[in-house]
Amino acid sequence: MEPWQLTAAEAAAKLQEGTLTAEALTRSCLERCAEREPITKAFSFLDTELAISNARRVDKAYTKGVLHGLPLGVKDMIDTADMPTSHNSPIYEGLRQGRDAACVGVARGEGAVVFGKTDTVEFAAGGRRALTRNPHDPTRTPGGSSSGSGAAVADGMVPIAFGTQTGGSLIRPASFNGIYALKPTHGVVNSEGAKRYSHTLDTIGWYGRSVADLKLVAQAFRLFDLDKPLGKTVRQLRIGLCRGPNWAQAAEESQAATLLAGKRLAAAGAMVEEVELPAPFLDINEAHRVILLGEGRGAFLPEYLTHHALLHEDFRERVENSTGITAKAQVAAHDLSAECRKLFDALFPGFDAVLTPAAAGEAPVGRQDTGNPVFNSMWTLLHVPCLAIPCTKGPNGMPVGVQIIGPRYGDAALLEVAALAAPVVDAGA
Amino acid sequence: MEPWQLTAAEAAAKLQEGTLTAEALTRSCLERCAEREPITKAFSFLDTELAISNARRVDKAYTKGVLHGLPLGVKDMIDTADMPTSHNSPIYEGLRQGRDAACVGVARGEGAVVFGKTDTVEFAAGGRRALTRNPHDPTRTPGGSSSGSGAAVADGMVPIAFGTQTGGSLIRPASFNGIYALKPTHGVVNSEGAKRYSHTLDTIGWYGRSVADLKLVAQAFRLFDLDKPLGKTVRQLRIGLCRGPNWAQAAEESQAATLLAGKRLAAAGAMVEEVELPAPFLDINEAHRVILLGEGRGAFLPEYLTHHALLHEDFRERVENSTGITAKAQVAAHDLSAECRKLFDALFPGFDAVLTPAAAGEAPVGRQDTGNPVFNSMWTLLHVPCLAIPCTKGPNGMPVGVQIIGPRYGDAALLEVAALAAPVVDAGA
Repeated sequence: MEPWQLTAAEAAAKLQEGTLTAEALTRSCLERCAEREPITKAFSFLDTELAISNARRVDKAYTKGVLHGLPLGVKDMIDTADMPTSHNSPIYEGLRQGRDAACVGVARGEGAVVFGKTDTVEFAAGGRRALTRNPHDPTRTPGGSSSGSGAAVADGMVPIAFGTQTGGSLIRPASFNGIYALKPTHGVVNSEGAKRYSHTLDTIGWYGRSVADLKLVAQAFRLFDLDKPLGKTVRQLRIGLCRGPNWAQAAEESQAATLLAGKRLAAAGAMVEEVELPAPFLDINEAHRVILLGEGRGAFLPEYLTHHALLHEDFRERVENSTGITAKAQVAAHDLSAECRKLFDALFPGFDAVLTPAAAGEAPVGRQDTGNPVFNSMWTLLHVPCLAIPCTKGPNGMPVGVQIIGPRYGDAALLEVAALAAPVVDAGA
Repeated sequence: MEPWQLTAAEAAAKLQEGTLTAEALTRSCLERCAEREPITKAFSFLDTELAISNARRVDKAYTKGVLHGLPLGVKDMIDTADMPTSHNSPIYEGLRQGRDAACVGVARGEGAVVFGKTDTVEFAAGGRRALTRNPHDPTRTPGGSSSGSGAAVADGMVPIAFGTQTGGSLIRPASFNGIYALKPTHGVVNSEGAKRYSHTLDTIGWYGRSVADLKLVAQAFRLFDLDKPLGKTVRQLRIGLCRGPNWAQAAEESQAATLLAGKRLAAAGAMVEEVELPAPFLDINEAHRVILLGEGRGAFLPEYLTHHALLHEDFRERVENSTGITAKAQVAAHDLSAECRKLFDALFPGFDAVLTPAAAGEAPVGRQDTGNPVFNSMWTLLHVPCLAIPCTKGPNGMPVGVQIIGPRYGDAALLEVAALAAPVVDAGA
């Protein structure tokens, strides 16, 4: 077994005990990249020498952080002090920032090897697509906007990577690529140094190939109550299976995956019960749209003014408020969101987690359509932690995942539920 | 009259008609700085040649933006592509970022002359104080954390400047320095590129020496409904005078200023009526504290891990959660805030604005105590627009202001109310 094949948690154990070095793991990941990158195109910036030099610095460190020696992919709209941050925008091609984004600083401070920048949908928002292909089938999208991060982790090029979610940019690619992802509670992980699209929605998250991988990164960020054990077995879990207001938009394979995950959990002894969301949730998609477009007005205004010709019309339309979002509509959307957050949290502790589709179906063919975020947007707006778990395959043999969701600030408990549920839900695990 | 003596709006008129150049105004401001800066110490970075070069670039522009030719001070925790951003932190001394913060990009895109970086409380949050002195009395603080921006505008060194408010860092210094300030609705002005303290609270705002100055900057940011006239005279205004839950913490001069502003407005024919906030507001200060400290955990984690010895203990305590903020307390604080936001907005359109103290009293003596933010924190948390208006003098001859407040996204109407109220409220106007 090559080091690149290890999950982050497996590699971390060897790195901590000293039987694997950051450099050896990094070199193995680079070899994997040499083989796969011509097809997958996950990286927008990858400098072999720099990655090795970052690994050597980690190998020389006095202490070992929780991410010691783990190569990390960074979505290319998150600043890095030692690599360009191009946002997949012609405006920022080769842009050098002076300091790391907060999340990169934390990862580096905990010993991660900043490995390379992963390709993204322009500004993680619209416009240009990443060049990245799905490692399971290069004729298909890996999803977006965290295209490169999802594909790089799925393809063994890095064990962990940062992505972001404003609509469904983190969890959907996890499903398309057959990997794990955590979108933590909004506001818990400092998003400073990542391109802003919507203040209310933008959330930093990460990919791994196991729940334990996701937990390692959560430890780096000191998510609340990580040291408080759930103290349950899978037989004691209470799972709310939630079709939600968008169920009809799910392809058969996504509906089937969700029901299958429920059946597998029930077969393992968990209590699985269907849960219906109350009436205000009928308007939650619209609230997401209003807030996204409303806040998008200000997000791209600097580029609109200073680099008009280089700004894709997607972003010009945001600035010009082409959809006519009003102040009144924004207030109503915020108030509805606040109401739904309370209503959703009230499902806990009656349930330990809510189970729902992670994406609308298999990864679409082509590079332009990165998939429908409708199974993610409302959860992003609710600010709740979402964790993607691979589950099954669709009619074209592509991965199809599910997600489990906890109450706000319930990230630690959700990771524990996932650790119990994943071996049951993930047929490949 | 020297050009530096012009308000932004007065200067803008001359700049637009071509009777004043950006370079002439910038040189005049630099002369004012040469005279006053040794006493006031408003700037942490000021390069005469660079300011003039920025002005000349503006003078050569093909088109004139709404801020054409106006020298702009930028709080030194907001990124600038051409000047260092030091955050008043030994960690980031001389830090060079590759691109402007969003707000600076917008200002530059609208023709502002980026003039210099203004001194700030460390990370706009705690630790080291600015060196800045109050222009009205150099033995006193200009307030914080937007110390340099407030003092620079008050002292005629720049007509406009950016500040930020997380507790009371924008409106309080406006009161202490006898100038105008607008803290817009949270989330409307993109805060990307400014140091993060609290995601829920951090808000970019600006200073000027008249309401018209504030409106110019608001135009640059395309705040909602700026083109929709209020269509009222001062006699038609309905003002809610709100002592609020913290009235007892106001010094006599701040209580007197608020009541005096109310009397002046009533004397001018406005309807002024005392308004009481409902019961949930009794816990709003505590909600602000919980959210601030809870989000502060993640805000300084990168520096805690990578530059521990250079990080002030104020920030180490945040990271270590020394006050023991829990996940549960954070959820409750968010839910209470959402409830209070709705309750406050419900006061409108019964009132056109709420009038309340802008600070707890005159500017304190010394450099360490930058004043009590208690008359600002709750409004920051409510996400509502706040506009500071100078009103009177305290027992030591120092300025004492008031603020008027509108509902969320009501920034444009609030500016119109201010334009009517300021000539009545501001004895010096």
